[in-house]
Amino acid sequence: MDEKIKAAIFKLAGKTRDAVVCSVDDDGYPAAKAMFRCENEGLKTFWFSTNTSANRTRQFKKNPKACIYFLDSSSVSGVSFTGSMKVHDDNAIKLRFWHKGDEKYYPLGPTDPDYSIFEFTAEKGNYYKGLQKHLFKVSDIQ
Amino acid sequence: MDEKIKAAIFKLAGKTRDAVVCSVDDDGYPAAKAMFRCENEGLKTFWFSTNTSANRTRQFKKNPKACIYFLDSSSVSGVSFTGSMKVHDDNAIKLRFWHKGDEKYYPLGPTDPDYSIFEFTAEKGNYYKGLQKHLFKVSDIQ
Repeated sequence: MDEKIKAAIFKLAGKTRDAVVCSVDDDGYPAAKAMFRCENEGLKTFWFSTNTSANRTRQFKKNPKACIYFLDSSSVSGVSFTGSMKVHDDNAIKLRFWHKGDEKYYPLGPTDPDYSIFEFTAEKGNYYKGLQKHLFKVSDIQ
Repeated sequence: MDEKIKAAIFKLAGKTRDAVVCSVDDDGYPAAKAMFRCENEGLKTFWFSTNTSANRTRQFKKNPKACIYFLDSSSVSGVSFTGSMKVHDDNAIKLRFWHKGDEKYYPLGPTDPDYSIFEFTAEKGNYYKGLQKHLFKVSDIQ
């Protein structure tokens, strides 16, 4: 893959605050919700924090098939990643991603049972810019 | 539903240029792609133009289950609609949504076989702003 395109993908996936996280619901419909990314490790792993009681947490426990999407409206570019979502509720991982201020979302602190962590593992991607598109395997451009 | 929330939903869905359109792929994974909305009729029907040859066109013909999502990052608000996507390839509908400049995407003009129209029909919605969420049936707030 062209180095400029690769750099654009890393920038879009690494810098965009909001990811649109997609699951498949109980009736087989796709479901989308914007989430703040906590951290990412290259293009392979993306971490999110979430309410354990949220519908999408239950959905991902049942069906881990997932897609995350980063959009830059101003340059008409976007990148989607297809992969799987793992839900973590153990305190070591919850503590690892805890940030000051998260009490706003999880009043009981880092061990709040309503606080969980999503770990998204990307398998393949699709980068769009204008009319161009580039399909790729994540393992090929790490 | 509170009139202020209703107004915010109409604004978000009616004014945001990009919708993130989600389908379910052949392997059961959700798939997302930003698309420009052509037109909408309230919150019930949203029209998009697309390449007939695109993967998502084939996907929606096979499985019409769909979700569209509008995001306003600056106010941390978003609205998703769940419903079905119909693919139109008849020339009357293609002409109806043709805009000057669309030759850039469909070089053969409004009857280009690689130009199709998506009609999304919304059944239910989910509006988020900060920590609030509001589930609604589209027929209840039209």
